[in-house]
Amino acid sequence: MIQLKTTATPNTTTSWRPRVLRRQDRPGSVGIVQRQYAHFDETLHLRSGATLSPFTLAYETYGTLNTERSNVILICHALSGDAHVAGYHSPDPDAKPGWWDDAVGPGKMFDTDHFFVICTNVIGGCQGSTGPSSLAPDGKPYGLRFPMVTVADMVQAERFLLDYLGINKVFATAGASMGAMQALQWAVDYPDRVENVVFLASTSRSSTQQIAFNEAGRQAIYADPNWNHGNYYGGPIPAGGLAVARMMAHITYMSDASMDRKFGRALQNHATLPYTFAEPEFAVESYLSHQGQKFVERFDANSYLYITKAIDYFDIGADYGTLHAAVARIQAHFLVATFSSDWLYPAEQGLELVQALQETGREVEYQHVHAPFGHDSFLVEVDLMTEMVGGYLDRRWNQRSAF
Amino acid sequence: MIQLKTTATPNTTTSWRPRVLRRQDRPGSVGIVQRQYAHFDETLHLRSGATLSPFTLAYETYGTLNTERSNVILICHALSGDAHVAGYHSPDPDAKPGWWDDAVGPGKMFDTDHFFVICTNVIGGCQGSTGPSSLAPDGKPYGLRFPMVTVADMVQAERFLLDYLGINKVFATAGASMGAMQALQWAVDYPDRVENVVFLASTSRSSTQQIAFNEAGRQAIYADPNWNHGNYYGGPIPAGGLAVARMMAHITYMSDASMDRKFGRALQNHATLPYTFAEPEFAVESYLSHQGQKFVERFDANSYLYITKAIDYFDIGADYGTLHAAVARIQAHFLVATFSSDWLYPAEQGLELVQALQETGREVEYQHVHAPFGHDSFLVEVDLMTEMVGGYLDRRWNQRSAF
Repeated sequence: MIQLKTTATPNTTTSWRPRVLRRQDRPGSVGIVQRQYAHFDETLHLRSGATLSPFTLAYETYGTLNTERSNVILICHALSGDAHVAGYHSPDPDAKPGWWDDAVGPGKMFDTDHFFVICTNVIGGCQGSTGPSSLAPDGKPYGLRFPMVTVADMVQAERFLLDYLGINKVFATAGASMGAMQALQWAVDYPDRVENVVFLASTSRSSTQQIAFNEAGRQAIYADPNWNHGNYYGGPIPAGGLAVARMMAHITYMSDASMDRKFGRALQNHATLPYTFAEPEFAVESYLSHQGQKFVERFDANSYLYITKAIDYFDIGADYGTLHAAVARIQAHFLVATFSSDWLYPAEQGLELVQALQETGREVEYQHVHAPFGHDSFLVEVDLMTEMVGGYLDRRWNQRSAF
Repeated sequence: MIQLKTTATPNTTTSWRPRVLRRQDRPGSVGIVQRQYAHFDETLHLRSGATLSPFTLAYETYGTLNTERSNVILICHALSGDAHVAGYHSPDPDAKPGWWDDAVGPGKMFDTDHFFVICTNVIGGCQGSTGPSSLAPDGKPYGLRFPMVTVADMVQAERFLLDYLGINKVFATAGASMGAMQALQWAVDYPDRVENVVFLASTSRSSTQQIAFNEAGRQAIYADPNWNHGNYYGGPIPAGGLAVARMMAHITYMSDASMDRKFGRALQNHATLPYTFAEPEFAVESYLSHQGQKFVERFDANSYLYITKAIDYFDIGADYGTLHAAVARIQAHFLVATFSSDWLYPAEQGLELVQALQETGREVEYQHVHAPFGHDSFLVEVDLMTEMVGGYLDRRWNQRSAF
């Protein structure tokens, strides 16, 4: 772990604050969108040595591809995300928008007035792309027969999708957390296909503590008898174990201060402590329980196992010998942002990448954002993010157009 | 949450470092010790309004009570501790010493050449004191029929023990984490019975994040079908759930940096990644699994539920209206120490107590210790702790003798 030396890098700024909002009025929605599918009979050759064929990728797009096919932004999702980044799947007024609706739309940080935004559910996922809950060629769900996947494998699958869509080069890959890992992996594995990378709240290699938290979550799933070594499709799902994994993970996405501000020691439905195990006593307990419950309704436990493994495996340096060797392959320009209260992906980790990029002569802007919401700051601090990411993309776009 | 203002308090020091070791040579052991029991037919009137009677307390003592009965130090244990602080229960060379053997013995920080050290298993525990695994008056294990207990209830039970031992006043109460909560509660509830308090790595009220982590652990236990609403005695125990709770908690006791230093991304028994769910892949996974396994062999899942609840309930200010009102009752002199890498009980929490003590005119020394081992620093940094705590106790003892 390197020291956080904010003065060592001339183009590093701390205490980043937006001076103006990118848009005065709150921008609009992309509206009703549809999940699309691309089916591939090709073979994915995975890092583990295993192969996967055939495979399907679920994806969504927003905005319009320009005639030069040069305005593509590939957003890569994190552990619990999917292809549905923005807009609505139904006109139902109660429908929930995509997971980063604040980020994608006309006038938003990924501005669909200018950019054609693509997001695909990762391989190993459970929202339309081939994963452990998909049917194997024998007509039965893969379960644990699904091969182990890595972030590099996810990116390889995404390359198939871009080829399928006729897109040779993307203006940017972008993501936070595991999404940023993919965005980085893209620029390293396919250097001539990525112009810019937006790398938020992430690391070039998963730390011991990150692996440990993921493993504790996996153990919660393993411990659920309904998990049954991954053979639960058609029967009761390991809801208890998955909910516990999610609750624990959810704590790591928030900061101590933001939890305190949101809930403090407020009681749930009581004026005084009921002193009971029968119901949540503190409001934060009810909140965690709700988060766990919501998650099991939408996420597959085996996918949770596979994707957390992919995160743990992530070490871009190990793929090419050293971090510097990996980074030296990069042709893209980088925006790296870390968040002051993100203790799961602390600033040192982002800065280690920044320094490697600088030491190998790559182009990088680094922002250390003072934001109180922990790892989730990138989702919550919409105005800050719009200014920072939107501003970066505008600037990069204008610089390209100037040539 | 108050700001960490190290300059605001004249007797506050940061960057504490020992100048000399208290003892040049490594001090000795208290040797073979025995767990003792005190049985009470009296009634504990608990904060919840419930009562508990009869009850038993398991305890151990080290050193010799002086004729004035003035050299007593009551050590209070944390969540997973028990009465067996130091020495050995058997002459077997493979026997493990007590949980804080580095701290208690001749020449150690709690120096048994001078002090008579007592530790008792908390009420609600599972190592000899009455708890949910004990038999209720009807001859069956309490299970969830055991009343909910608080830190104040634990302290009330400890008061019965001191009365039983004929000790009116203790030279010091001391503890870390939940142990420090008890040490503080003693000085507030029984101000004329405590001369000094050693308050390490703790808080005057459990934070939202602390409650959240405890709740995630409890949910892991609830989710284990063997838990069976607490009715598992005589049958299979909820080992899976308890192990998951322990693994998760264990991560919170270490720092990111200390985990990284200890394990990094080292693989377990493999030169290259095996890409499997069948065994631990990273060394840290094996370590967590081992920690979980060891814990279920020695700890009762229901006790884990009750004791984490007691920690969550802890808010010394709420007992007396405000923190300042509670603290204003105190007659004891305080040593408060926080640890730089302890992110579970961050320095701000200890400092909030320090400021309340100062603002109400109490006597307090505050040390912010730079130590890399997270919450467990108080267990690991033996030389630092010996100098700081041992030095404090020596100084306080000499000051008393001077009068």
